[in-house]
Amino acid sequence: MYKVDLNSDLGESFGAYTIGLDSEVIAHISSANVACGYHAGDPLVMDRTVGLCKDAGVAVGAHPGYPDLMGFGRRNIACSPKDAKAYVKYQLGALMAFTAAHGLKLQHCKPHGALYNMAAKDQALAQAIAEAVAEVDSGIILLGLANSFLISEAKKAGLRAASEVFADRAYQADGSLVPRSKPGAVIHDKDEAIARTVRMVKEGKVTAITGEEVPLAADSICVHGDNPSAVEFVKNIRAVLTAEGVEIAPIAAIV
Amino acid sequence: MYKVDLNSDLGESFGAYTIGLDSEVIAHISSANVACGYHAGDPLVMDRTVGLCKDAGVAVGAHPGYPDLMGFGRRNIACSPKDAKAYVKYQLGALMAFTAAHGLKLQHCKPHGALYNMAAKDQALAQAIAEAVAEVDSGIILLGLANSFLISEAKKAGLRAASEVFADRAYQADGSLVPRSKPGAVIHDKDEAIARTVRMVKEGKVTAITGEEVPLAADSICVHGDNPSAVEFVKNIRAVLTAEGVEIAPIAAIV
Amino acid sequence: MYKVDLNSDLGESFGAYTIGLDSEVIAHISSANVACGYHAGDPLVMDRTVGLCKDAGVAVGAHPGYPDLMGFGRRNIACSPKDAKAYVKYQLGALMAFTAAHGLKLQHCKPHGALYNMAAKDQALAQAIAEAVAEVDSGIILLGLANSFLISEAKKAGLRAASEVFADRAYQADGSLVPRSKPGAVIHDKDEAIARTVRMVKEGKVTAITGEEVPLAADSICVHGDNPSAVEFVKNIRAVLTAEGVEIAPIAAIV
Amino acid sequence: MYKVDLNSDLGESFGAYTIGLDSEVIAHISSANVACGYHAGDPLVMDRTVGLCKDAGVAVGAHPGYPDLMGFGRRNIACSPKDAKAYVKYQLGALMAFTAAHGLKLQHCKPHGALYNMAAKDQALAQAIAEAVAEVDSGIILLGLANSFLISEAKKAGLRAASEVFADRAYQADGSLVPRSKPGAVIHDKDEAIARTVRMVKEGKVTAITGEEVPLAADSICVHGDNPSAVEFVKNIRAVLTAEGVEIAPIAAIV
Repeated sequence: MYKVDLNSDLGESFGAYTIGLDSEVIAHISSANVACGYHAGDPLVMDRTVGLCKDAGVAVGAHPGYPDLMGFGRRNIACSPKDAKAYVKYQLGALMAFTAAHGLKLQHCKPHGALYNMAAKDQALAQAIAEAVAEVDSGIILLGLANSFLISEAKKAGLRAASEVFADRAYQADGSLVPRSKPGAVIHDKDEAIARTVRMVKEGKVTAITGEEVPLAADSICVHGDNPSAVEFVKNIRAVLTAEGVEIAPIAAIV
Repeated sequence: MYKVDLNSDLGESFGAYTIGLDSEVIAHISSANVACGYHAGDPLVMDRTVGLCKDAGVAVGAHPGYPDLMGFGRRNIACSPKDAKAYVKYQLGALMAFTAAHGLKLQHCKPHGALYNMAAKDQALAQAIAEAVAEVDSGIILLGLANSFLISEAKKAGLRAASEVFADRAYQADGSLVPRSKPGAVIHDKDEAIARTVRMVKEGKVTAITGEEVPLAADSICVHGDNPSAVEFVKNIRAVLTAEGVEIAPIAAIV
Repeated sequence: MYKVDLNSDLGESFGAYTIGLDSEVIAHISSANVACGYHAGDPLVMDRTVGLCKDAGVAVGAHPGYPDLMGFGRRNIACSPKDAKAYVKYQLGALMAFTAAHGLKLQHCKPHGALYNMAAKDQALAQAIAEAVAEVDSGIILLGLANSFLISEAKKAGLRAASEVFADRAYQADGSLVPRSKPGAVIHDKDEAIARTVRMVKEGKVTAITGEEVPLAADSICVHGDNPSAVEFVKNIRAVLTAEGVEIAPIAAIV
Repeated sequence: MYKVDLNSDLGESFGAYTIGLDSEVIAHISSANVACGYHAGDPLVMDRTVGLCKDAGVAVGAHPGYPDLMGFGRRNIACSPKDAKAYVKYQLGALMAFTAAHGLKLQHCKPHGALYNMAAKDQALAQAIAEAVAEVDSGIILLGLANSFLISEAKKAGLRAASEVFADRAYQADGSLVPRSKPGAVIHDKDEAIARTVRMVKEGKVTAITGEEVPLAADSICVHGDNPSAVEFVKNIRAVLTAEGVEIAPIAAIV
């Protein structure tokens, strides 16, 4: 039986500002990455989002980012691994107060934005994040880019690691993503994106932009709830996966 | 056998800014209130401070405040009890990540500054704080002003409550503090302050500014490490209490 | 010839967060209150918003608020008048960098949210704000609630003051607004709201909720661009005012 | 007649946090770089610092940094030149409110920390900063590292540029600083540092770490007021320069 997780970023609203169609996309995913107040989210939003996840039966993960609300965590901050480790612990703990209050356990941690991208290719940063998670609670799964340092460092730190794949992104021969600045980085044909994803899940392979077959663990697929067409895509990918005999399940049931 | 706790605010430094003689005062106290990043403190400072407490055998408490770094949490923010409840949960959790990483349990929660003062006299706010603590972990003790709503609401929420007294502050007949704006609010004679404290601990009574005898639970005494003379005072009060047969012990050993 | 200004809050977006239909409402107003980064707005948004105003021929005002992005400046912060004075100067100056860069002059300053409401009834706070404006540039007009301390203190500080009225709010016999917590505070009938506004502008009077006729200067009408029906209301009130022979003009052409 | 400016960072305190011996170092410098609230400083501190400069007859400059209070502006943030341009404008304007209120003109702008270091070697960033200054007020001087992009871009933008040199830093043959990570980067011998500085000012030359003679404009010398020995150094360098016939004067009297 094939299984895969569908994860989406949730709880990115802040104060008077609302962003994301959380209450719509949540019906179609199995795990949520909840912002923790550094790049997005605030305590009220975190509380509400964890409650929403509980009601929907969706597993809760932390989505720690750089302390950069103005940049939504999308800009690299040249902080030390020691700084990043402390920031991840802080945000993990903050969210765990709300999961505890709702009687839930925190399932996973997925770094956000620039922190995710940097850690994927910076071993010291990936190690710092993995150690932060392990020191707070070694039962938390680290969700990171397939084939990246986040996965290898998670394992070194004694954590369960979950490999994330992207339906609409092209891959290089070494298993990394084609940078967005390069032509062909984004796969705009939605049917092709879904077909590639089904193959990643069932065969553990993807065809690189240069033609090679690349082995790839696909524990979780990153989906979005930013706008109605994104939500529509989540519905579609879920329907096709299910029709193909793939069960949608939270990460904890997979890794 | 008489017992009392000596508590002090620690970990109020932030980034490049250092405040407080933490490494000096810690030798003389039994419980620390550690800032959680909203009015003071940052993740690196929190980590370092929890480590300092562990090494010194001092019990760790959370010191949540209003989200007001510029005002150091000393200014009331007219937020709703619901907001305050979420802010307290967030900060509690954030600190618990560091206590967990250091293999410690969070002993208590003491609201900071304006949040402490407002909650002492605002029942709905005190209730919100008590519920926040209880929902995150009902084993955490709530430390608040003796005879205030923080104590009564902590008990209603099923928490252990610890009553805090002030060595250098005058009391009113109803057990509340004489406001700082009134003459006689602060007791400048250090020997008198210490003598009053010994009596509060051993007899459970203090003489009000208007002459009445006021019953008062004295589980913990608030002391400071802001400057060398404050640290000197802590040494003295500890020495006198010990000589008077009062054991200095963390709150968890008292309530 | 009757004249009145229509003012609306603009530039309240922040980073990745968008709020307000700025590009729609701007076609119908004569003055904009631009957020300055404390309760809303960021430097990129400020730059864009001042450019939008320039293109639309709308006069630019500063909209300083409490330093409370999480609360959108809607919660009172018990800071001293001295603090508030410095905060207003800071925000005024920050926006003036953008008006200067666009070759514009800052027309006015209207405090935001809780700062506006508190200053209307707190003389010391109103004085601090008026002095802040006067010390930065005495050519800036202070826009505040009609009959409030903001108006009287602006005049004392040697500033031109502009009195603001609300189309959809009931007034008390003393010229103050009926608090939102009281029944009848908001006038839901849009035609009635517009009719009342026309009378305020042309006759300088409004009927209090208790029946008295209240004299009222109506230099500027507060309108909103939060949602499509708010924008529709602005169009309507502008059309009716124009049909009634009232010219819509920026504050600087009125006071 | 030789002239040089002595500049120091001032106004880096924040809220309850005090940093720097501003009131001591100010007696010995001719220009101050005042923090603008993004990496350090707050409105009250800015007001107080500008007042201190006025009383001491020290010229006021803006010291804009990255929006990173937690990192004191010392960490690069990978923001776009467009972002940086808006951030510089915002901070310049904010400080200009206080110089205006004190009846002063802003003399110069010196980027802080990581923004300074990045802009020195990143042409697009330097251009953005120079354009920000020029668009706000083309009378403001841009103070930057000698021989860096900050100087060349300031001139392109039509600004007066002032070249800054460091007494205690070694230079490379191309006129750039030896990175702090390299051996020999910092000159610890204070007499040697002062002698090098005198030569930079009087001969416009410095000996590179690799032995070459490097031409260098020395309009302003960066000094510090962090601690008593730093203040002592400022006194000494000023005394030696004066004895060598070099007049200490604010940048505006030099470039």
